Amino acid sequence: MMRTRPLKVALLGCGVVGSEVARIMTTHADDLAARIGAPVELAGVAVRRPSKVREGIDPALVTSDATALVKRGDIDVVVEVIGGIEPARSLITTAFEHGASVVSANKALLAQDGAALHAAAGQHGKDLYYEAAVAGAIPLIRPLRESLAGDKINRVMGIVNGTTNFILDKMDSTGAGYQEALDEATALGYAEADPTADVEGFDAAAKAAILAGIAFHTRVRLDDVYREGMTEVTAADFASAKEMGCTIKLLAICERAEDGGSVTARVHPAMIPLTHPLASVRGAYNAVFVESDAAGQLMFYGPGAGGSPTASAVLGDLVAVCRNRLSGATGPGESAYAALPVSPMGDVVTRYHISLDVADKPGVLAQVATVFAEHGVSIDTVRQQGKDGEASLVVVTHRASDASLSGTVEALRKLDTVRGVASIMRVEGE
Amino acid sequence: MMRTRPLKVALLGCGVVGSEVARIMTTHADDLAARIGAPVELAGVAVRRPSKVREGIDPALVTSDATALVKRGDIDVVVEVIGGIEPARSLITTAFEHGASVVSANKALLAQDGAALHAAAGQHGKDLYYEAAVAGAIPLIRPLRESLAGDKINRVMGIVNGTTNFILDKMDSTGAGYQEALDEATALGYAEADPTADVEGFDAAAKAAILAGIAFHTRVRLDDVYREGMTEVTAADFASAKEMGCTIKLLAICERAEDGGSVTARVHPAMIPLTHPLASVRGAYNAVFVESDAAGQLMFYGPGAGGSPTASAVLGDLVAVCRNRLSGATGPGESAYAALPVSPMGDVVTRYHISLDVADKPGVLAQVATVFAEHGVSIDTVRQQGKDGEASLVVVTHRASDASLSGTVEALRKLDTVRGVASIMRVEGE
Repeated sequence: MMRTRPLKVALLGCGVVGSEVARIMTTHADDLAARIGAPVELAGVAVRRPSKVREGIDPALVTSDATALVKRGDIDVVVEVIGGIEPARSLITTAFEHGASVVSANKALLAQDGAALHAAAGQHGKDLYYEAAVAGAIPLIRPLRESLAGDKINRVMGIVNGTTNFILDKMDSTGAGYQEALDEATALGYAEADPTADVEGFDAAAKAAILAGIAFHTRVRLDDVYREGMTEVTAADFASAKEMGCTIKLLAICERAEDGGSVTARVHPAMIPLTHPLASVRGAYNAVFVESDAAGQLMFYGPGAGGSPTASAVLGDLVAVCRNRLSGATGPGESAYAALPVSPMGDVVTRYHISLDVADKPGVLAQVATVFAEHGVSIDTVRQQGKDGEASLVVVTHRASDASLSGTVEALRKLDTVRGVASIMRVEGE
Repeated sequence: MMRTRPLKVALLGCGVVGSEVARIMTTHADDLAARIGAPVELAGVAVRRPSKVREGIDPALVTSDATALVKRGDIDVVVEVIGGIEPARSLITTAFEHGASVVSANKALLAQDGAALHAAAGQHGKDLYYEAAVAGAIPLIRPLRESLAGDKINRVMGIVNGTTNFILDKMDSTGAGYQEALDEATALGYAEADPTADVEGFDAAAKAAILAGIAFHTRVRLDDVYREGMTEVTAADFASAKEMGCTIKLLAICERAEDGGSVTARVHPAMIPLTHPLASVRGAYNAVFVESDAAGQLMFYGPGAGGSPTASAVLGDLVAVCRNRLSGATGPGESAYAALPVSPMGDVVTRYHISLDVADKPGVLAQVATVFAEHGVSIDTVRQQGKDGEASLVVVTHRASDASLSGTVEALRKLDTVRGVASIMRVEGE
């Protein structure tokens, strides 16, 4: 039962991802038509520089007027791969108003304005799909939102930024420092000229907000996500991690509190055991570990970025949205009915690895241990190393709240015998 | 917009999976209602022994007459977790005829009669979902069928049977032989009293047929799947694998031929490099590695069996089917438009690891090498070990067709200097 009138697709943006979407729509047109039940036609491509020659794209389709394109009224699906907040947000809203459904790869926009955009989609009875916004080609939004819809998700913990994983993997495998590994990532095209969004965790935090929202059926704003970059991770930290049988990854962690009454979302570097499936995720790959009541532990692994992988995710959504349009239905919209409170970072409970520079004299360990005890932070192991009047103490704690740990560290800094706190790192995945 | 009239669910079977489905439907009723948009009600439970007390299930719902239950006419969704061909097949068909959609966990039935069941569902405008039929809780059917619907899948290679993975992992880590590892699996409840379906690869072959059908949009019958069990894998094979930097897994492999014109599906033990993500899948876990044109390499990992994980997959499907019912739509049905020919095992191209017992005298290697060359099988490496007049030759080949390799082995057996072919194992994942 193939419909012959094609579904019309407007493409906003024709960079690395957009050009790949257009290419696959052309080369795989027959397959897409068979899977959708109707042909799909590229009806317009909005770009900033329409004069640029784009291989495989009919110049007659290219326009610089994106607003006019989404207002045409005959567009079935708008594919937004511009990125950034504006003009993407206005264009998506206008698209809904003019009868189109939307497929987006825009993590920053979804993390910031997901609720408003979902509301606009719902108001007009249209779909908003965005599998490509998190972890590139890895099917993740759909499994969380649909496959696990009958389960209770308790934790989503993932490597969701390929640039930082490349850098950390390089530091781990070669012993390089942060700057050296970043330089290599830049030279190989894995890091942008300004790597801030990646290395300071902004990109991962946007993804954490999206994942937490879906996993916990709760609105999680970008501001709700605690964020710590990985620029201060040192070769010494990797050496400490190795001694513990761990490596270091930049993790996005979305958790339900043990009492189930609240959730947290955070991004920071953390030590994880080498035996954990996330520890062996190499290079620029992404992987997300999901823990739920009934399913147990699941992991999703694949390329987290790049033109082709992102286009794969966009096209999967395009097929779904087109199918929904043909059947007159819409897919799952925002699900925020649980409306759980999002707790601050101080409420997060985990383990910590703390390196202290201390005076090499008797009684220091007793002083330090007393401070931990006073703040209710229980010590798992302590290792003491001394030379030339200086010494270091490496303390690994049992599970404690971030607030208790912060209080402990503040008090430790005030001790005369503690010369400095060399590093504090969370320990996850145990 | 919550509908108050509940959707009615009939549960066929109340064993390990069914009882867990019933339990979660009760304990998570509010969440399911919020996610579906209407409450779901357990309207009947068909079992063989209705007199048995079932905790948490109202005895008034229990019946031994499954046919009457699916014929009631007010059932929205039938959940079939009986397993086996009959009466499951008749009950599912009857359910469609009486207006219900179906969620099934029945791999044997889907592999054998998937096309007919999909046709029946389509004829009555109903859904047939079966995420739980392959790899338990791991979202796999939905990602292949929906997330990758805009991509071209070239290979699906997975560990889809937890029992055999437990046995092989035990042999690998302890050096145990097959029987010893099987005995432990039986004692721990990982293997059934009659382990034939698992260890002879029947279970994995059913899953391979289902996966290949979905991945390649082509009907793949159970008979199309080449099947070799893992009962003859020895501790010596593991020792050989280790020397190559490999381990041994029972793999289900669905491949598109390099020219794209045909597909193959097979189940057999194979060596894979320790660096491959599938090599580190431990115990009874499952994992499926997917390679596609645009997305590249993806992996899905999780528990492949068990009551709770399977129930998670069943309930995810139940939510989707209920949502479809409320919106008057159906999800993706069978997609077999590509109708690619399924090639026989002889056409499969891969590498081989062959151990030969040979006479320890000059010229043997030359004779053996000539046989390989005559059959067009190119040798990668040879290792010769001799003692006491007996010697062994371990040959690892480059890529060659299964037919060429079979011809080679047949000719080798006829050589006077070859006392026996100790083992032949395929090498995958390189």
